[in-house]
Amino acid sequence: MIIIGELINGMYKDVGKAITKREKDVIQHLAQDQVKAGAKILDVNTGPYSKNPKDDMKWLVETIQDASDASLCLDSTKPDAIEEGLKLVKKRAVINSTSADDDRMDVIFNLAKKYNTQVIGLTMDKSGVPNSRDKRVELAAKIIAKAMDHGLNANDIFLDPIVLPVNVAQTQGLEVLEAIREFRLISDPPPNTIIGLSNVSQGTKFRSLVNRTFLVMAVADGLSAAILDPLDKELMDALISAELILNRHIYCDSFLDAYRKR
Amino acid sequence: MIIIGELINGMYKDVGKAITKREKDVIQHLAQDQVKAGAKILDVNTGPYSKNPKDDMKWLVETIQDASDASLCLDSTKPDAIEEGLKLVKKRAVINSTSADDDRMDVIFNLAKKYNTQVIGLTMDKSGVPNSRDKRVELAAKIIAKAMDHGLNANDIFLDPIVLPVNVAQTQGLEVLEAIREFRLISDPPPNTIIGLSNVSQGTKFRSLVNRTFLVMAVADGLSAAILDPLDKELMDALISAELILNRHIYCDSFLDAYRKR
Repeated sequence: MIIIGELINGMYKDVGKAITKREKDVIQHLAQDQVKAGAKILDVNTGPYSKNPKDDMKWLVETIQDASDASLCLDSTKPDAIEEGLKLVKKRAVINSTSADDDRMDVIFNLAKKYNTQVIGLTMDKSGVPNSRDKRVELAAKIIAKAMDHGLNANDIFLDPIVLPVNVAQTQGLEVLEAIREFRLISDPPPNTIIGLSNVSQGTKFRSLVNRTFLVMAVADGLSAAILDPLDKELMDALISAELILNRHIYCDSFLDAYRKR
Repeated sequence: MIIIGELINGMYKDVGKAITKREKDVIQHLAQDQVKAGAKILDVNTGPYSKNPKDDMKWLVETIQDASDASLCLDSTKPDAIEEGLKLVKKRAVINSTSADDDRMDVIFNLAKKYNTQVIGLTMDKSGVPNSRDKRVELAAKIIAKAMDHGLNANDIFLDPIVLPVNVAQTQGLEVLEAIREFRLISDPPPNTIIGLSNVSQGTKFRSLVNRTFLVMAVADGLSAAILDPLDKELMDALISAELILNRHIYCDSFLDAYRKR
């Protein structure tokens, strides 16, 4: 499974401060620590309080790339901030994200085509996040079709069924899990799927427990990627074990260490 | 999910000794502790070294029932030992188990009919444990059909796809998990499914981690019961969280305590 590290996000207090004050060390350590813990891609989000998202994105991408050769996932509601990052990335990037709205998809898929990126497609539109797996699948198919209209490949899209907090949307856990399974039937080879994991435990008391439990269930349903905190060791242990059970890496007694040393 | 406590089994050294020496306290504490931790049913197995399985089963059933009103799951290869227990049980029991072999099914289903029990049906036969989910489903359907021929209801059968140790049969994890899902399509309402969990981690170094990861994946696939160690707190936390995510109990901040106080 592809792990996208979530920690470089201006919504976290320390990171927000580091962006404002241009503290390179904070960002670079976060980049290196996440990669060391298993992240293959780093999410880069200037955060909700950024006064100049374009400048902040430029600085973040440069700062991270000075210290790490991980791929980047450029995470912003603002296409011009995403493009500022895309101009600088050294490896193939991921755009986070488009909704299933036509106007947003046109903008984001044009960027994806221009800069040869992958794209996270959220199965929601102007009417909000669907309540059912069926509506999520409908929007997922719409996203894949639109991406192909723009000349992208189906497997350049990561379909995101949108995980909601279990404490306020408890019926949605099963819908999201089954949607992951059903998304895989949309095309052959199956499209990639992704979740923003931490949202499931937002506002709950046992965040790590809820996160790792949900992740293991999603892995059982065939999830291909997740945005998560790779520094949560118990979460990573659970993920490594789930992938072991699915025969994605060979068993040895020290399978946790072996995975981490890859 | 129905939890069947696995700890009253003569293969464990202390339990074997307690059976031989007729130490009631040891057995009664194990019964009470497992029920307190969440077991609804207690597995009762005289163990591989029992010199007189009939007497041992009789003593175990009487001893447990003197201290607990849990239902019992009578676990023996010997039909006469099972029947000895069935004569004594105060609540509806489960027989653990029959294979998909006709001769074994005839004996076990006759007992089940006579004593009005449920039965665990292992999807294996004289040729061994299947390698594929398809063969498991074929044997599961055979077990359900045979049970119905004997006048049992489909939902009195717990279909067991047979979990194998991940360190020696790593390809079988996915087959077992998908079999759980496919068993549910055999009849409507879906038949019950069960696993003997601890087998998955037999011989591995991180047994609790592997057990709880596999259990959460199986819960995602719709598992209805498991034979496990309810005294493994992390295992129970994972199970409670997985069922929370599937909306099987209502979210509250102290959902772990709330579940345990039910």
